Formats: sequence, structure tokens, C-alpha cells
Amino acid sequence: MSDLTSRDKKVVWHPFSKMKGDYPIIPLKSAKDEFLITEDDTEIIDGISSWWVNIHGHSNTELAQAMYDQALKLEHVIFAGFTHEPAVKLSESLCQILPNNSQKVFYSDNGSTAIEVALKIAMQFYFNKGIKKSKIIALSGAYHGDTFGAMSVGERGGFTTPFHPYFFDVEYLTFPDDDHNEDASLKELASIIEQNDSCIFIYEPLVQGAGGMRIYSDSWLQKALEISDKPNCIRIADEVFTGFGRTGKLFASEYCQAQADIICLSKGITGGILPLGATACNNRIIDAFESDNWEEAFLHGHSFTGNPVIMAVANKSLEILLRNETREAIARIEKQQKQIADSLKDHPHVLKVNSIGTILSIEVKTSTDAGYFNSMREKIYYFFISRNILLRPLGNTIYFLPPYIISSKSFAKVQSAINEFMDSL
Amino acid sequence: MSDLTSRDKKVVWHPFSKMKGDYPIIPLKSAKDEFLITEDDTEIIDGISSWWVNIHGHSNTELAQAMYDQALKLEHVIFAGFTHEPAVKLSESLCQILPNNSQKVFYSDNGSTAIEVALKIAMQFYFNKGIKKSKIIALSGAYHGDTFGAMSVGERGGFTTPFHPYFFDVEYLTFPDDDHNEDASLKELASIIEQNDSCIFIYEPLVQGAGGMRIYSDSWLQKALEISDKPNCIRIADEVFTGFGRTGKLFASEYCQAQADIICLSKGITGGILPLGATACNNRIIDAFESDNWEEAFLHGHSFTGNPVIMAVANKSLEILLRNETREAIARIEKQQKQIADSLKDHPHVLKVNSIGTILSIEVKTSTDAGYFNSMREKIYYFFISRNILLRPLGNTIYFLPPYIISSKSFAKVQSAINEFMDSL
Repeated sequence: MSDLTSRDKKVVWHPFSKMKGDYPIIPLKSAKDEFLITEDDTEIIDGISSWWVNIHGHSNTELAQAMYDQALKLEHVIFAGFTHEPAVKLSESLCQILPNNSQKVFYSDNGSTAIEVALKIAMQFYFNKGIKKSKIIALSGAYHGDTFGAMSVGERGGFTTPFHPYFFDVEYLTFPDDDHNEDASLKELASIIEQNDSCIFIYEPLVQGAGGMRIYSDSWLQKALEISDKPNCIRIADEVFTGFGRTGKLFASEYCQAQADIICLSKGITGGILPLGATACNNRIIDAFESDNWEEAFLHGHSFTGNPVIMAVANKSLEILLRNETREAIARIEKQQKQIADSLKDHPHVLKVNSIGTILSIEVKTSTDAGYFNSMREKIYYFFISRNILLRPLGNTIYFLPPYIISSKSFAKVQSAINEFMDSL
Repeated sequence: MSDLTSRDKKVVWHPFSKMKGDYPIIPLKSAKDEFLITEDDTEIIDGISSWWVNIHGHSNTELAQAMYDQALKLEHVIFAGFTHEPAVKLSESLCQILPNNSQKVFYSDNGSTAIEVALKIAMQFYFNKGIKKSKIIALSGAYHGDTFGAMSVGERGGFTTPFHPYFFDVEYLTFPDDDHNEDASLKELASIIEQNDSCIFIYEPLVQGAGGMRIYSDSWLQKALEISDKPNCIRIADEVFTGFGRTGKLFASEYCQAQADIICLSKGITGGILPLGATACNNRIIDAFESDNWEEAFLHGHSFTGNPVIMAVANKSLEILLRNETREAIARIEKQQKQIADSLKDHPHVLKVNSIGTILSIEVKTSTDAGYFNSMREKIYYFFISRNILLRPLGNTIYFLPPYIISSKSFAKVQSAINEFMDSL
């Protein structure tokens, strides 16, 4: 055990980890492009973009420079009663590129808080109209974050059991993973909306991330958004994972004509180098808060809401994302992922394989129950990490979603390791 | 209206603000030391440390350099299965300086999430021992943040009315603002603990921040911690506002002998320039999670948990905080604030005046009801901002808590403006 690892073990509590018997903690000294570089100079390919956040590569010099320049000029200020160019510019850019005609953006510090803000805005939208409590609707298998509001609208399973007694009530729709379930969930949605004065429908567009990289059809989402296009329903799209090119388009919502009222963003918004949450709302929402009455104001905030340094980084990241070379890289990865998915379709050990944009998802056949705690999880992790590739599976589901700057050589290395793994089963 | 302000009005939703009729939005171009510098070069003294976060002054070059150096080296990595020097170093430092014998630190992105993490850890502590639901105890008037868990344990009032139907249950103790209420609240605390299998007691040590800068006695907290020192009670100290020198000592908890099991940190932890939450736990807590069973693991995390850039900044901020010159500045401000408080004690328009460490709190007499939405709020704000001083009151409570680097000249300017304001009433 390295000195750093043993020091770590004494004082650090790691996220989503067991204190005993989990994967060994690997000490890093640096990172560059798609590589995580360990203390002993091993280069590990970051095949999951460090929890799906990194899009332009590690230790990106343009992003570091934008950060530094802003930190020397206006590093932070209370965002009530004050404003600055980085926040205005980012808000203008987001309103311009988001597909739902967003008019205003509210900032917070991560994906969970972006969701909490969206839920609170939707609840208060109805409260401002005199309705005290709303029916919350989510999809089975959803993951929206780890704070109490975000957990409440997520799947209730092994990750959240200790906290269930503290959650508010939510209705879950059948996950639309085949024709029968698509029909069933649309009927459930229509029925809930018909029976309630006020509804809030939250969903991850096209891909459930932590729920197992489960991809569903855009035609289902289009129908769900048509059904829920009612005065008594607000729709929240959780694009925390799917935003900023991850699904091939800038936002997964672009795969549909119909759109949500509120879109939540995080992860890739800063290029994946600093935390930021954003909750963007269309005019239907904004209009309900256009008031000089304190009771109708949205009294929410975090100390670092609108932090100039983080906004400057987000502006630079967006500039890089919109460059031709980045769009071409995304298109190239999309094509490659589709090829891998096609090639594995009939593999005897594949239960399901799918891709969307830069995301490849492979559910491996297993003799035991599927799910996150499946023993296949360790087998997969160790197979790849021993080849200096980080693929941290969700149970028996391998997923591969690299930074967009991944080199052809690294991509090919991961692809051949995946084939090798599947053939080893 | 400046071009930036009118652009802002179109696309930005500001925290804790009304969309109409709120204070005008001031466009900033930079900030340095205690000054916020507007587009037209006006220097505004930041008398509230930008929502109580800034301790070493704005655009601090040492912090900017630490940020930049780290961003070029290892800007971010998934914090499950990996570690790095900035996180280990920060955790070691925190465990060393925290007064409650903390053994491990869990990171998140802001004060609200630091609280959510603490509540979840405490709930799961009991869950891991077979107890399904715990009694949560908080202080009347508390503020712990804006996510659903954090809101649930805060005061239920005008800030949270639209969300009450979605909160979990909490028992509130009488606020210990006089001898009678001190006794009453201790009895309430003892009685709740006696009647319940498992309790979680959360409090802001010595000062309720957003609740109105209400200061209470350390002798009360000492007694409350003695009473709650029971196997069926976990104590959570919310030092988000009070930490890192704000109350004169490094942490407000140091005013007592008895200590909490969990301490939550944010705001000043990075010097107030980037968002970070930390939840530090003693061995009593850690022991309940020392397991290789997934069901007993704390399955919480945020994408940017343990972000190296933010940790590098926090390490540098801590280094600056522990320097003699900073400690001396804090002691000097503490003395000055006490002098102002003493001088205003018998002022005919003062209802209550108090200070602790670098915090001065003045409750102004008002003909209407006290509280956040009191009309005195606007009168105070405009009086000071027209003199290029930012003091954003909590209703009829003026508070002044500057960055520790504030110059004597700026301090004197604020002091004389406060006197002028009080005499103008």
C-alpha cells in the first residue's frame, strides 16, 4: 500500500464505497487528456469520463486558463443584488442552445441541487396558484441525485433503503423497455394527470444513467410529453448526465419535438472540472414568479450560486464543445459505439447491448440476479483496471463513455479489451 | 440600467430575490480585498463577506495560484476507487483542527449537501443497528440549507411554506434566548431523548445565521451536549457559517468542552472562493460503517466529491487562516466588534445588539412586526449601499461580518456609517 493510500484510509470517507472489501484505492498524481496517471506513472484510460463529467479531457489548459484569469479578476460575489459578465453570458448561451425555449436560468452547485431547485420551482408554481400539494410522477429505475428531494423521486432500492421513511410520496411509471411497457406507462401517466389537480413529471431523457445505462425510445418520450402537455402538469427533464453532447446531440431532449418546461444541467456543463448545477425554465414557469410579493418569490439560494470562476469555465467549455472538431469527435465516437454494439448483438454472453451518442451499454448475462450488487461487477472492474482501463460497471452492465478527445489508439484499446472480456466469459 | 443589467434581467434568475421590486442588480467587473468594484469603478465594501464566505479577501492571488497549479496537474477524477494528495491533506488537516476528534471526512459541494450527508449518515447509523426511523430534533429559528433534508430541519416559516407538505417530521426546541427558555429547551431535549429509541440532534453552535444572527450562550450548548450524550442520540454541529474563524475561535464548537459526533463545514472552507461541503465524523459514527456488507455502506456521492482543484484551494486557505497575521486580524476585529456592540447597547433604537468573534449583530427597533420581510430591511440596505457599503440585513437585523483582511480605514467607514444610520432613526 502506498503512503498516500494508507494516509487516505485513515481520514477519507469515499463516495459510493464500502469501508471494507471495496476496490483498492488507487493514488493519482496527475491526469492528462483521457489518462489518469498513478503515483508510479501508470496511465489508466478514463473510460467513464470520471463519473460522466469529463468531456474535453483532463487538465485541459484552456479551461485552466479561463479559471485562473477569472480568479484574479472577480473570483466570487454574493449573487443576490449583484451580477457579472460570466453569469450573464452563460445564461444567454444556455437559453440559446437549450431546445425548450428556456428563458431564465437558476444556478446551484451540482446535479442533485439542480433537481431540488426544479422540484421546488414546480411545487411553488402551483403554490403560487393556490394549490398546496402536487402529485409527483417519476419513472421506475430513475436516479436523480442523493439529497432528500432528489432521492425521493428516484428508484427506491438498495441505495436508499435507510432513508425511505423520510421521503415524500411519488408515483412511478412502468419503465418503457418494450412495446407492452411503453403502452402501459403512457396509460399510467394519462390516468394520473387526469386524476390530479397538479402534477410534476420528472424524467431522464432517453437514458437512465445510474439506473443501469438503460436506453428507451424517443418515440415513447415524444408521446409522454404530448400526453403531459396539460395545464395541470409540469415536466422536468433531468439532463444532468445526458447534456452537452453525451447522447450525440447537444441535449437528449433534442431527439423529441415536444419539450419539458424545466431542464436540469450539471456534470459536463463545466467540461467536468468544477461542480455546477443549472435549472433552466421556460416562460410558462417564469410567468408564475413575475411578482413583487415575497410570498410568490423563489426563496432559494446557495452561497456559491453564480460563482464567476465556475461560470467562466463553463463558458469556455461551451465554446470548445461547439467547435467543429468537437462535434466531429462526438459524431466519430457515436459511429464507433454503434459498430461495437452491432458487433456484440449476437454474442452468447450479451443480454442486451445498446448505444446512443457517445454511450455504449452492455448488459452481461449472469447466473445470479442482475442489479448493481451483482458479483459480475467486481469481475468486470478488475478485468479492465488490470489492463489500465477504468470501466466501473453498474452491476452486470459494462458502459463505456469516454471524454470526446479520446485518441483512436485509446479507443481501440478499450474496444479490444471489451471483446477480450466478452470472449473470456 | 447598464447593458449588463438589462441582459441579466432577461436570462438570470437570482437567488433569494423577487422578480419584481427587489433591490436593483449591481453589475460588477472585478473585486479585490474587501472591495466589490462596479462597472463604473465604484468600490463597495463587502461588509457581509459575500454571504459569509469570504475570509481572505476577494481575488486573492495565493488562492488563485493554488487553483491554477492544481488545474494544470490533476483537475478532477472520480473519487470512488481513487485518491490524491489534495484530498488526503485536507482531510488530515480537518481531523487535526476540528475539536470533536473527527476521524474521517466525507465531501460534497455546499453547505446544504454537507447537512444532507450528516443527516443521512446519522439515519443510517441507526439503520445499520436495526432501527428504521429516528426522531429528528432541531432548534426553533434554525436554518440549515435549501435542499429538502436541510429545509426539513430548519424553521418552518415564510421561506419554506410552499414546501412544507414534502418535509419529514422534526421536533423543535425552544430557542434558548433567556434563562427561562434555556431551562425549557433543556427539559424538552431531555424528554425527547428519553422517549425515543434513536434521536438526531442538529444545531448551529452559538449563532443562528440566516435565522437572524441570533447568538445564544455556550453554557446552554454545553448543557445540551451533556444531556444528549447518550447512546440513542447523535449530535450534528452545523458549522457551515460559524467555522474557520468567524466566531473568533477556529470553530464555534470550541467554546464548549462537550462535542458533537458530526461537524458540517462549508462557506469559509475554501476561503469563500469555490463551493465545497465537508462532513466530519468521529469514531463512534465511523465504527457503524466499518463493514464489507453493501447494505451497511453509505451509498452517497456527487460527481465532484473530492474535486482536487477545490481541495487545493481549501488547503491553501487553511494555511493562510492559521498564519499569525490572520489570527491577529481576527482578534482585532473581535475586539472592535465588541466595542461597537458596547457603544450601541443603550441606543434608543436598538432592540438588541451582540457580537461574537468577527460577527456584529444589531436588531433595530421597528414599529411593525420584526422578521425577514420587515420594511426596515429595505431602509437599511439602501442607506448603506448608497454609501458604497454592502450590509444586506436579515429583516430588521443589521449584521456586519467582514473578510478578515479588511483595512482599518474600511472598518472605520462601516462603523461610522452604522452610527450614522442608528442616529438617523
